[in-house]
Amino acid sequence: MAYVFRQATSDDCEVLMSLIQEIATYHHLQDDVTINAQVLKADGFGEDPFYKCILAELPVENGCKKASPVGYALYFFGYNVNHGRMVYLENLYVVSEFRGKGIGKQLMAKVAEVALAAGCMDMKFMTMEWNRRAKEFYLRLGAHDTTESEQLHCMELGTDALRRLAQDGKEP
Amino acid sequence: MAYVFRQATSDDCEVLMSLIQEIATYHHLQDDVTINAQVLKADGFGEDPFYKCILAELPVENGCKKASPVGYALYFFGYNVNHGRMVYLENLYVVSEFRGKGIGKQLMAKVAEVALAAGCMDMKFMTMEWNRRAKEFYLRLGAHDTTESEQLHCMELGTDALRRLAQDGKEP
Repeated sequence: MAYVFRQATSDDCEVLMSLIQEIATYHHLQDDVTINAQVLKADGFGEDPFYKCILAELPVENGCKKASPVGYALYFFGYNVNHGRMVYLENLYVVSEFRGKGIGKQLMAKVAEVALAAGCMDMKFMTMEWNRRAKEFYLRLGAHDTTESEQLHCMELGTDALRRLAQDGKEP
Repeated sequence: MAYVFRQATSDDCEVLMSLIQEIATYHHLQDDVTINAQVLKADGFGEDPFYKCILAELPVENGCKKASPVGYALYFFGYNVNHGRMVYLENLYVVSEFRGKGIGKQLMAKVAEVALAAGCMDMKFMTMEWNRRAKEFYLRLGAHDTTESEQLHCMELGTDALRRLAQDGKEP
């Protein structure tokens, strides 16, 4: 079947949000989701968008007015001080019953195409080491695990730490 | 001494580039740097900037027309499908003779301030596990090592892999 790949628009935020909820539930992280469709719309389709998204859909069939989404790739552009422009793949998801059909690879290929057209030299992303299926998929596409090869560790400062830090910076 | 912290402008790209070369040389990666000051200018100060940068400078003294840069924090905004807006700290650098004076923390605090004002909930970045001094600095600021706590691995697709992937996506 020929799936349709296209840039998400603000009209897709409800359906995108339902897929985000689905993946969070799959990872037992549903309580961790603090955004909603309105936030997604404001953050992705305002004046300074924080992300871009490519949707995979089943083609619209006769008698059916709306296409069914079967996956998405959410990404944003960034920078590397050595190589310049790069793309960061935040999240890739394919609805479970549509896995194994090449949709994930096609989504990655579309992001690669957009990224190269924007002058990006690298794609970065993170993966959970326990998710062997995802990791092997990325390795097959030519990705390197830079945590293994270069001892790179992912670090995170949460909201409370950010607030404390910003406050400390204001004090004389 | 009261250092000056301010957003970099396109006029700072020459000096920013010299600091980027300095850090690359420190890491024996000088041959890895493929950008130059013109590229930095185009990528950071055009219509759709790929990064933002805060500079730390020595205050301008009497008789001296130009401030001396002593460090920078280069960052960009991104997104997390669970929490929404976030900031990605690409690179933090303080010139060696000015280390241990709190300039790195002040740079981080300025990025935190800008990020919170933009509605970001988290800061993400990577650090080399062997760079104990950097790692301990980040942990003291309240950062978590999510490679250790959540088995998150950093992954990268280089230019050749991106091109192959984009090409594969175009073939029927």
